[in-house]
Amino acid sequence: MEEIISSRQNIQIKKIRGLLQKKNRQKEDAFLLNGTKLFMEAFTWGVTITHIFLTTHYIEQTDDKVKQTIEKVRSSGVLYQSVSESVLKSLTSEQNPEGIIVRAKKVKLNKNFFSNCVILDNIRDPGNMGTIIRTVDAAGFDAIICSECCVDIYNEKVLRAAMGSNFHFPIFQTQNVLQEIDKLKKQGYFIIGTSLDGIETLGENLSVPNQKVIIIFGSESHGISPVVEAQCDFLWKLPIWGNAESLNVAVSAGIMMYLLKEKLNN
Amino acid sequence: MEEIISSRQNIQIKKIRGLLQKKNRQKEDAFLLNGTKLFMEAFTWGVTITHIFLTTHYIEQTDDKVKQTIEKVRSSGVLYQSVSESVLKSLTSEQNPEGIIVRAKKVKLNKNFFSNCVILDNIRDPGNMGTIIRTVDAAGFDAIICSECCVDIYNEKVLRAAMGSNFHFPIFQTQNVLQEIDKLKKQGYFIIGTSLDGIETLGENLSVPNQKVIIIFGSESHGISPVVEAQCDFLWKLPIWGNAESLNVAVSAGIMMYLLKEKLNN
Repeated sequence: MEEIISSRQNIQIKKIRGLLQKKNRQKEDAFLLNGTKLFMEAFTWGVTITHIFLTTHYIEQTDDKVKQTIEKVRSSGVLYQSVSESVLKSLTSEQNPEGIIVRAKKVKLNKNFFSNCVILDNIRDPGNMGTIIRTVDAAGFDAIICSECCVDIYNEKVLRAAMGSNFHFPIFQTQNVLQEIDKLKKQGYFIIGTSLDGIETLGENLSVPNQKVIIIFGSESHGISPVVEAQCDFLWKLPIWGNAESLNVAVSAGIMMYLLKEKLNN
Repeated sequence: MEEIISSRQNIQIKKIRGLLQKKNRQKEDAFLLNGTKLFMEAFTWGVTITHIFLTTHYIEQTDDKVKQTIEKVRSSGVLYQSVSESVLKSLTSEQNPEGIIVRAKKVKLNKNFFSNCVILDNIRDPGNMGTIIRTVDAAGFDAIICSECCVDIYNEKVLRAAMGSNFHFPIFQTQNVLQEIDKLKKQGYFIIGTSLDGIETLGENLSVPNQKVIIIFGSESHGISPVVEAQCDFLWKLPIWGNAESLNVAVSAGIMMYLLKEKLNN
């Protein structure tokens, strides 16, 4: 008979729960994934899973495809542990988790060359960050570089909103975004900053040599920082035709990436 | 000395709290607004405010412009009531409200003619709904028509995400979206449905007579309903260039409205 952990104070559970905090994710180079969708995405994209925690109710009612995947992961020697509903809930901030939470190793994707890349300067809201990651993936950009003050991309809410896109392309964290921009400029990238000081059209004759272009999105409240803005080759803003003061940053990022992509494709 | 209500069981407070529920908002034709930004927007746009509830801490630390506006509203005979932090918190689902919550009458904006309008078919998530309202406003569309199953536009989370755009243009709720579409078609509107069955480009020769165009966005999980889809003149989808399965509905609505607007303006 399999043992079910039902105490939140269990030492192993306490250690796993620590991964809800960024500092522990950094220390262990690992993070937690909550729910079937993210578990299946992680498996499909070759993310290294080290622990599976689930409730008996979850395993009873989940569909065969998911069950088979869990068995496959389990048989590869991964720690598999049944837990009570209460213990499972203690591993997430979500109110009604589905019943499966896994620990995985952080993803190291590299790319020697990319043509389009997004830089995020100081995106703090996890929902916005996750939605932007998902949108960058959809728009087919090759990579994201996050400035030092962005919310952690392994934050639970970021992962949920990104719906697996974290695993599809490289996302880098830099300690010095200015240095990064400088390096990219020297490599011949054209740097577009999005800013209220920008102009409202990309222009007929925006010349992007070899399609190598970087687009930078700034914080929800303050936009991109002035020092970053000063490094851009071109400043762009979306027109506001109605009476809204501004757009949500994830929405405007989506609009701008698709408009830019259309421009580059023509 | 002004009286401060400090009991959550106060009869007036209980009645106001009822407005957190849709059925009471419908009965009273009124709703609650939470926070400085929404209060100021409501005032600026001529929304009828009937009650102001605030904490003494809020009124002490708020800036002069807001104070003056509160005084202006108060002197027009609106009920003004100081409440304890605990009572104020009982009037919202927000964790840390700023300290001002007002009751207002629902807005009746009419427009005899509009050229571009958005139909929302079954948008359930309040955050998405609010972000779409804000984005429709930014993109300069003239109106929104919500199908019967959409989340209430006076839901607290919708109002928060919409950041005041609720008051800037007419938003209608219909009991029969098919009938509405039929009527609009007879009035000469071109109906674009967004759908995974659509094609990925608006096309060079999409002809929109007199710019009269309606665009329909469907639910987060199921898209627009098949009966609605069947009424459309054109089905459109965004290309996915990367590995994301889909886009967030508020993001894709933003991208499509801006792409459409660009098309109409050219």
